[in-house]
Amino acid sequence: MSSDEVLRVDVPPPELRPYEIRVRAGILDELPARAAAAAPAAAYAVVMPDDVAALYGERVRDALNQAGLRAELLVIPAGEAHKTRATWAAVTDRMLALRFGRDSAVIAIGGGVTGDVAGFVAATYMRGVPCVQVPTTLLAMIDASVGGKTGVDTDAGKNLVGAFHSPRLVLVDPLVLRTLPQAELRAGMAEAVKHGAIADEAYFAWITSHADSLLALEAESLEHLISRSVELKAGIAAEDPYERGRRAILNFGHTVGHALELQAGYAMPHGFAVAAGMVAEAALGEAAGVTEGGTRARIVDALQALGLPSASPVPADATALIAAMRLDKKARAAEPRFALLERIGQAAAAPAGGWTHTVAADVLERTLTQAAEGDPVV
Amino acid sequence: MSSDEVLRVDVPPPELRPYEIRVRAGILDELPARAAAAAPAAAYAVVMPDDVAALYGERVRDALNQAGLRAELLVIPAGEAHKTRATWAAVTDRMLALRFGRDSAVIAIGGGVTGDVAGFVAATYMRGVPCVQVPTTLLAMIDASVGGKTGVDTDAGKNLVGAFHSPRLVLVDPLVLRTLPQAELRAGMAEAVKHGAIADEAYFAWITSHADSLLALEAESLEHLISRSVELKAGIAAEDPYERGRRAILNFGHTVGHALELQAGYAMPHGFAVAAGMVAEAALGEAAGVTEGGTRARIVDALQALGLPSASPVPADATALIAAMRLDKKARAAEPRFALLERIGQAAAAPAGGWTHTVAADVLERTLTQAAEGDPVV
Repeated sequence: MSSDEVLRVDVPPPELRPYEIRVRAGILDELPARAAAAAPAAAYAVVMPDDVAALYGERVRDALNQAGLRAELLVIPAGEAHKTRATWAAVTDRMLALRFGRDSAVIAIGGGVTGDVAGFVAATYMRGVPCVQVPTTLLAMIDASVGGKTGVDTDAGKNLVGAFHSPRLVLVDPLVLRTLPQAELRAGMAEAVKHGAIADEAYFAWITSHADSLLALEAESLEHLISRSVELKAGIAAEDPYERGRRAILNFGHTVGHALELQAGYAMPHGFAVAAGMVAEAALGEAAGVTEGGTRARIVDALQALGLPSASPVPADATALIAAMRLDKKARAAEPRFALLERIGQAAAAPAGGWTHTVAADVLERTLTQAAEGDPVV
Repeated sequence: MSSDEVLRVDVPPPELRPYEIRVRAGILDELPARAAAAAPAAAYAVVMPDDVAALYGERVRDALNQAGLRAELLVIPAGEAHKTRATWAAVTDRMLALRFGRDSAVIAIGGGVTGDVAGFVAATYMRGVPCVQVPTTLLAMIDASVGGKTGVDTDAGKNLVGAFHSPRLVLVDPLVLRTLPQAELRAGMAEAVKHGAIADEAYFAWITSHADSLLALEAESLEHLISRSVELKAGIAAEDPYERGRRAILNFGHTVGHALELQAGYAMPHGFAVAAGMVAEAALGEAAGVTEGGTRARIVDALQALGLPSASPVPADATALIAAMRLDKKARAAEPRFALLERIGQAAAAPAGGWTHTVAADVLERTLTQAAEGDPVV
């Protein structure tokens, strides 16, 4: 038998480059010039959900046209229920019908759903075209803007189909938070609290003390909130791009939070679930001896200042929650894993290495029962 | 107004690495060990078209199982008509139903369609899982195995939706060419002739002189053919990963070839179209003074030795062909572009820079009329 012919293929991947997130009140007006510079293209597909399009659709398209850019508005139905392969295919087919070529680009203007769907269109249109993201919810501004994750849901679960595709530019204009429905504002605030809790005590304290001006949507406070949260998340993500290690700390509050959402049939606002999840996981950490005493109380204070709940707003069943956690994709061998705090501003490394913890079954059940009942001890 | 907060995000892209193409008669038997080494996974989705599955399905799955690997067979309908988003979604949904997690991998065993569809599933399953490619047609072995292109067709055209996703390993066993229907064998031979014509005169001569043993599917000749073609294509692709320059020479024969296929409603075998296209484009080059005299005749000799046609097997209309070329995605401002030869073994750089040429309208029409008529001068 002849020996193997072994050929090594080392074709660099398609262009993947660092990108900028620009945050400033009013920067939306500069979209045409900034899109043209960061993602020069023969034509722009401007993807917006219907609610955002009603407020900004024509204004944005006209501004792009007046700058001499070809731009077409592609409106998708708003809401997670439409974060599907069907919406992705419909946007793709509309671009094909409009004869968008490989030299086109996508501009996604909307919340996380729009960014994920339009980003996935960009990732797969003729094997990838540039994308500019303009998040319009606080959650999308501080969370989805970092990391290049795109994708859609299927009946089997959330984000099961997708790709990594970095945007060329993210433009964040906090002023849009004043004019758009703010269902997700609280969810954004909860994630910001989480960023402080896992990585920056001073930032955590700043959020607590600036809760009033944040809730009043004052531009300077929002600019700082968004910038610092993005900085923290980008730092953690850059350290661990493949999600094998410390990036897991971003899941603080989310193991319990996802279980709560699942139990509520996703009728519970994500921010409420994450808020209650952080309190429960701080309590878990304290009960397990991993988290400094008093940590849970400080998180409760921050959440209350922001008008977020510190316990599940609907009755939760600890046994059902634990069952849901066993099915979570973070679980290993059906053992739920938690990102826990050492103290405010510092996530806890696990004794066996890594950044996720298991918790003894009795501690888990006892703590969650208290948390689910809204017991003031938890 | 405050100044911009500018945050730079530099999260490396998900894992993209060089990979090996291993070529040896009989290497298919080593699939379990080699897949486990190159793409360790908790479970393997083995994607095959129905015709390949009938011959190899159970054998491959049983071999993987006997090696202690979890493997499930996912059969897709054979043929370009099924290279669709629907097939991609069906394979994805089947994997989800089988509870394949992020720690699973895809093994694609089949021709170019299977590699493209299964590769696109791997590229997008939970934002990307590893893929092992086992091409079973000569065309897939020497062409699709290099470059990491994946994707599907839509009603608007071929390969309009997809992603770049490098396989972890490509296993090429020339012996499968003996047991599988070889509709695409000639297409593979035509592409090999092309590789010699654009980049390696000695290889071109070797193919011509080994036509008989190649057509008899002798293992050693096939191993050399596959290895040298892969080497040449990989070298050209690595030099120009973004398809901005010299990689265009891989389109030699394809501007006319695609127009012929379009005119025949894709009823013409791809290899026949490329073969006739190379002859026509060599004639064009000679008529335009770009290509050395006698080049066309040498290509005709090589094709005839391999039993490939040197002119369109169906009557073609030069005017319609030129109209089709104007719509080709290689065209610029509706002006058809051609990758031409300087001589056998050497593609011709364009005088104005780049590697694609325009040809004066009268030369184009006269030459194509002769080629379409099968005129022996062309």
